[in-house]
Amino acid sequence: MKLFSENIEDLRTLYVAGLKKALDMEQKITKALPTMIEKSTDSQLAAAFRNHLTETQGHVAKVQSLLREATGDDSAGTCKAISALITEAEDNIKDAADPSIRDITLIASAQQVEHHEIAVYGTLRSWAELLGQDGAANTLETILEEEKKADELLTAISDTVNTTAETRTAYSARA
Amino acid sequence: MKLFSENIEDLRTLYVAGLKKALDMEQKITKALPTMIEKSTDSQLAAAFRNHLTETQGHVAKVQSLLREATGDDSAGTCKAISALITEAEDNIKDAADPSIRDITLIASAQQVEHHEIAVYGTLRSWAELLGQDGAANTLETILEEEKKADELLTAISDTVNTTAETRTAYSARA
Repeated sequence: MKLFSENIEDLRTLYVAGLKKALDMEQKITKALPTMIEKSTDSQLAAAFRNHLTETQGHVAKVQSLLREATGDDSAGTCKAISALITEAEDNIKDAADPSIRDITLIASAQQVEHHEIAVYGTLRSWAELLGQDGAANTLETILEEEKKADELLTAISDTVNTTAETRTAYSARA
Repeated sequence: MKLFSENIEDLRTLYVAGLKKALDMEQKITKALPTMIEKSTDSQLAAAFRNHLTETQGHVAKVQSLLREATGDDSAGTCKAISALITEAEDNIKDAADPSIRDITLIASAQQVEHHEIAVYGTLRSWAELLGQDGAANTLETILEEEKKADELLTAISDTVNTTAETRTAYSARA
């Protein structure tokens, strides 16, 4: 950080609070993903969630490292949005008894989580740049790209799952 | 809807529940935007929020119309995620005393809301397509595109606001 002023201190406080919320978000996602893997019927979807669990564990470590660099401490904050998104995902899983419909709701819930992460890391990367923290900005950009790819993969799997649901529905309608 | 089966009925139920949550989301956003307009310092940002308020009022009407077509009723559901996002936005506004820092947090909060809407409408459009409801899918695509443009505009404004904050900080550091 090249500059020092009340303004930059305010932004630094916001940035650290944002990182702490991001850590809570990632930690809650690592706890939610095993259930999403278990409830997935489509093998591609389960594999995507398994792969994203490994990525998410990496994001926890990366955000903890950024926090230690920024403050010497890596304690988490509270991300209210992710708690709400996970509660809604759990409600959807309960409501969808049919396996292919459940896969469709799992994808929808996961894409809501991915989009939240995309917004969070897009902001944190901009703030890191503004604070002149290029290394942190690069790390946040790496995480952001992984979240965008996870969202794109879910869209691709959604096309397959939706086609399967359509085929099964057509079969069921003929039966 | 060309097909009828238990599966498609499940998906239809999900779709209607999704529309009802989307309606609650849009209604809550119309209530939150006036404060965001009032708290904005940057004139471009205030104008973007004012324009998005008009768009959001249009989204409320469009989603109500889709619900009436689907069920004959346009009552809203509950979107827990948007309540959490708005609460976080209000907390951020309170925490940021400096006007340019407040603008930065307003943009961050608004982009989280936009990304949530993008995820919600991306899913609803896919479900409408799967249900063979092409008219509804087109309407949802129109809303989705407006949300994406609102997010892109916020990114563009963010560059200006961030540059202003940087300039003010540099000035303050020299003073």
